[in-house]
Amino acid sequence: MTQSTARFMAMKGAGYYSKATTGAKHVIDGAVPLVLDALGRMKLADDGSVFRAADMGAADGGTSIDLWRKVLRAVRIRAPSRPIEMVYTDLPRNDFAQVFRVIHGQTDIASYLPEIDNLYVFAAGTSFHNAIFPPASLHFGFSATASHYIARTPCNIPNHVHMVGATGAEREAYVAQGRADWERLLMARAQELVPGGRLCLLNFGIDEAGRYLGHTGGASMFDTFDRLWRGLVEDGMIIRQEYENTNFPQVYRTIDEFVAPLQDRTSPVYRAGLRLEHVETRVLRCPYAREFERHGDAAAFARAYIPTLRSWSEPTFEAGLAPARLAEERERILDEFYGRYQALVERTPQDHAMDYVHVHLICAKEEG
Amino acid sequence: MTQSTARFMAMKGAGYYSKATTGAKHVIDGAVPLVLDALGRMKLADDGSVFRAADMGAADGGTSIDLWRKVLRAVRIRAPSRPIEMVYTDLPRNDFAQVFRVIHGQTDIASYLPEIDNLYVFAAGTSFHNAIFPPASLHFGFSATASHYIARTPCNIPNHVHMVGATGAEREAYVAQGRADWERLLMARAQELVPGGRLCLLNFGIDEAGRYLGHTGGASMFDTFDRLWRGLVEDGMIIRQEYENTNFPQVYRTIDEFVAPLQDRTSPVYRAGLRLEHVETRVLRCPYAREFERHGDAAAFARAYIPTLRSWSEPTFEAGLAPARLAEERERILDEFYGRYQALVERTPQDHAMDYVHVHLICAKEEG
Repeated sequence: MTQSTARFMAMKGAGYYSKATTGAKHVIDGAVPLVLDALGRMKLADDGSVFRAADMGAADGGTSIDLWRKVLRAVRIRAPSRPIEMVYTDLPRNDFAQVFRVIHGQTDIASYLPEIDNLYVFAAGTSFHNAIFPPASLHFGFSATASHYIARTPCNIPNHVHMVGATGAEREAYVAQGRADWERLLMARAQELVPGGRLCLLNFGIDEAGRYLGHTGGASMFDTFDRLWRGLVEDGMIIRQEYENTNFPQVYRTIDEFVAPLQDRTSPVYRAGLRLEHVETRVLRCPYAREFERHGDAAAFARAYIPTLRSWSEPTFEAGLAPARLAEERERILDEFYGRYQALVERTPQDHAMDYVHVHLICAKEEG
Repeated sequence: MTQSTARFMAMKGAGYYSKATTGAKHVIDGAVPLVLDALGRMKLADDGSVFRAADMGAADGGTSIDLWRKVLRAVRIRAPSRPIEMVYTDLPRNDFAQVFRVIHGQTDIASYLPEIDNLYVFAAGTSFHNAIFPPASLHFGFSATASHYIARTPCNIPNHVHMVGATGAEREAYVAQGRADWERLLMARAQELVPGGRLCLLNFGIDEAGRYLGHTGGASMFDTFDRLWRGLVEDGMIIRQEYENTNFPQVYRTIDEFVAPLQDRTSPVYRAGLRLEHVETRVLRCPYAREFERHGDAAAFARAYIPTLRSWSEPTFEAGLAPARLAEERERILDEFYGRYQALVERTPQDHAMDYVHVHLICAKEEG
């Protein structure tokens, strides 16, 4: 992917994302106690003023619906008089119609809207690297499995498709981009949060043991992506330049990289009053691999597993293809690619699992 | 269309709407002085508090972009310290991604966003018949060519596709639905507006001379729609029940119907403090018919004219078709329908024009 296309990246629309990502929903549901604790530590005057919450990088809003049901109900119970504004954000191309269809009860997902009165739902198409809200107008921010997207890819990675496989100068360039974007993201939130506001971030990252998404011992998912995509070059289906132009616009950060701007007293983020309240790492076993352990049917595993990978990875591989390729050609290449991945999973099912590795952070904006 | 499908109605997406509706943009651009005057009458303290504006029923936001450029710049000039929140609203299925792509400069439409600082853009998928915002949190509301959509069709119109062709009990049912929805729309805005806030509504309606959209002397556009759709029954392409199930979910109101709740001191809207500041009717000559008068090429006129009709009417005809019809079948029927319309325009160009007839209203929420 080239730099200019990074800002157009979005998850597959029409509900494909939340249907195919049951693991992402499990991660969020597992964080409910942590998030409710953070809300519980907030002062919440029942003074009739607007309480504004945000889900940033929310895709179609399906994976977080049950978390927000609990959080918004908790707000309603503690502050019956306060209107609540709930804002879903993502990049402009995101399927926001699907967000509104989910929330307004036009899908088979049970919305929280009928359960909570005086609640107003909005969306924003502003990148979370920029200011989404006016200063001091956000009470409670949340973002799950989104902050690893960087604003632009700093360079091509010549020998891999993801920064976890990059080395030397390219690795450093991605780490630096990740650091800069993380500080921009936190600074924007530090400005937007009211004093005493909370920010809950569930981030893809690298844990104490060096584990990250799809890489928790055994084969590594991103290495598999890389090997199969490279295979299309060897078989003449794509050209070498397309392989090199294919780079996930993502950075997986270490715990130290996550907490640095929140603990270094000289950092702009710290000086803006954003403080770390809690950090922990969590590993969630791939739900499809777990199912496979139960049923042992490799073909069924492969059939279920590929759509979850495809839901978030396809836009990156598509963006790597030459702009001159026709729509049908792109579709054929991508179908072949994921078809090969599925066949590989069926042949060697034990080598595949998209275990989730998260670094959960809770931050507070200093009072007054 | 049946009642249950009314809430799913939305304009055609992906920018089709604003590209095909140059007339709708002319209507809005023509109202700029009226709208700026309304803003000019507002007190606008430069006190750093959020100023919230809304474009309700905005479709893809393209037709109103130049109006908002002027309105938001005027706010910025008078109140440099105030953050501005700009909210685009429409039904959940609306193409909100296109709204954000327009505003964030990802289309060929010039956005106002780079010209105005401290500006935050949002969307809402809440019907304008309901509360979109918390009480007293909206400063400036605007809606163009949208309020004729009713929340549900009260009944089928057996002998026409639009309420302007209905008679007797069916006509009364539509008028009553239009009255109820208009009061709901105004009541919702009366609650949301701050004291001194303004509401600018450019409404399709029926003027002093009985004129309405596509009916300003000579042949009537909705009669043509009706005759051609009925023709598909006669030719066996659709069944009679599909014709009967096809009803525009629209009511064109008279001036009296528009102003009644704003002038009747016993009405809930009046009691809620919403006042009429200004009313006028405007007729805008169909831009395609005007072009035809210049160039005289009937085929070119027909080719240009049909897409503008199709951009807003197709969802209604599609909704009339039996749910059991397959996608390809629906497409074939609709292509045949609009193809016949195009051929008719080419044969009798002088009988066709979609002249716009609007009733412009400016309302103010009473101070304190």
